[in-house]
Amino acid sequence: MIDICEVGPRDGLQNESKHVPTTIKVELINNLIDAGIRNIEAVSFVNPKVVPQMVDAEEVLSQLPKRCDIRYGGLVLSRSGFARALETDVDYLHVVTTTSDSFNLKNAKRTVEKATEELTGVVKEGIDAGKGVMGVLGTAFGCPFEGEVPVKRVLEVAETFIKSGCTEITLADTTGMANPKQVESVVASFKKAFGDDLTLGLHFHNTRGLGLANILAGYSAGVKRFDSSIAGLGGCPFAPKAVGNVCTEDMVNMFHGMDVPTNTELEKLVKTAKWLEENMGRSLDGMLMKAGIA
Amino acid sequence: MIDICEVGPRDGLQNESKHVPTTIKVELINNLIDAGIRNIEAVSFVNPKVVPQMVDAEEVLSQLPKRCDIRYGGLVLSRSGFARALETDVDYLHVVTTTSDSFNLKNAKRTVEKATEELTGVVKEGIDAGKGVMGVLGTAFGCPFEGEVPVKRVLEVAETFIKSGCTEITLADTTGMANPKQVESVVASFKKAFGDDLTLGLHFHNTRGLGLANILAGYSAGVKRFDSSIAGLGGCPFAPKAVGNVCTEDMVNMFHGMDVPTNTELEKLVKTAKWLEENMGRSLDGMLMKAGIA
Repeated sequence: MIDICEVGPRDGLQNESKHVPTTIKVELINNLIDAGIRNIEAVSFVNPKVVPQMVDAEEVLSQLPKRCDIRYGGLVLSRSGFARALETDVDYLHVVTTTSDSFNLKNAKRTVEKATEELTGVVKEGIDAGKGVMGVLGTAFGCPFEGEVPVKRVLEVAETFIKSGCTEITLADTTGMANPKQVESVVASFKKAFGDDLTLGLHFHNTRGLGLANILAGYSAGVKRFDSSIAGLGGCPFAPKAVGNVCTEDMVNMFHGMDVPTNTELEKLVKTAKWLEENMGRSLDGMLMKAGIA
Repeated sequence: MIDICEVGPRDGLQNESKHVPTTIKVELINNLIDAGIRNIEAVSFVNPKVVPQMVDAEEVLSQLPKRCDIRYGGLVLSRSGFARALETDVDYLHVVTTTSDSFNLKNAKRTVEKATEELTGVVKEGIDAGKGVMGVLGTAFGCPFEGEVPVKRVLEVAETFIKSGCTEITLADTTGMANPKQVESVVASFKKAFGDDLTLGLHFHNTRGLGLANILAGYSAGVKRFDSSIAGLGGCPFAPKAVGNVCTEDMVNMFHGMDVPTNTELEKLVKTAKWLEENMGRSLDGMLMKAGIA
């Protein structure tokens, strides 16, 4: 069984320049739930001045159905975001740092070491506060400024999170640099270092067309949890470069074709993708929604 | 070493509604050669009333550089096409039939049996005439009208070609229905049936976003030859459904990332893709040409 972590409402929507009303965000998540999705990165507790699209994080969460079989995650990048998250019903804190100093300095204005120092505290206190905590490591497959990020480095950052009580880590290919051979190798290193007690997730962007090939490589290496975004949302319409997340329904179509269950209904996912496309008012990246289910 | 069969000049261009001048076709092929491509499906000997874009097949071939290290292929679907091909310098006949009766009846107005009866003759006579012959089996991974095409059926059609002297077979996923598990299984069946004496090629479309995942699966199963199209050419701009071939430079980027050599220069391929996009006057599907080489 594949465990899909749907990131469209967060990683997808945050790249949309036009503000999406809270009602649409909530309807999107309800549609996803209706299609079988049970693990949703619903919001981000970031500075609304930096990411205005996520300004209504608390409001979105308050309007979502509370169900014990559904897990809502919210991104936390700092202590201030953590404080906001604790005031909500969010189930899981997705605590994020990148693993490359150059990238982290540009994005969070501090080194990885400084970031993990603060965030390991957040991990511990989050667990103490009764929240689930997942660590998300960005640029885990390469940094656009530094190039290769040594696996050793990624493992070290993961270890600080794990030592603080994290049992789930997601490796994010922030700018679409991963390739299948590398994915297999990194996953093998993680399995060797942390065994099967660690729930390992993979987060790919289809920037260079390799999203599903990397998912396939991760699956072959034993990973069962994958982030994806309905309709492939995540490409910035005003940026010259494609940066969309792996498309949820395209991924589900691949797995169903391979007789690997995902606990989702493909028709409903495609319907949701088309509904979203109408609401975004532009063509989205998903392929299956255009070609049809074979 | 990956053996790329570049099909942009044929499968790619034939879907373009606007006529592409012979000079551009020739320049495209020259650019591909300069980038290291050595195996090119350059033309199709089809009825120009049906596929007007291929009307200048003879003219294109006559203007290409003759080099013993470069192999030009031309599609042959019938005796009339074969007769035209024999009048040219084309190195390889790519003799095509689909493997599904429903599809073949719609596309070639005859059953698969009738088609192979005629085409096995073409294979033999082509070899006698000193041409290389490759068999191309369409709908090998599924038919949009019949659904699944049994592997047994695909093997049977392949066998008629092989018995006629063909040592190369390419399996084509005509409408983008293949999935990685199926690819592995079909390749294994072919290896079991025909051993390593047969050169097996795979031809995928990225219709449902699975192009590179299927290539990866084929490579893992031992295949070294893949069809692809520069810039992902092949999507029909006026059709509602995406039908592009796997993109050459995106595929090369994947293999180079995996340290698998392709004997091509990625920068030159990307340059050619951008040049082609300018000449086509519309956005093409290739991802790497937009995102940049990482």
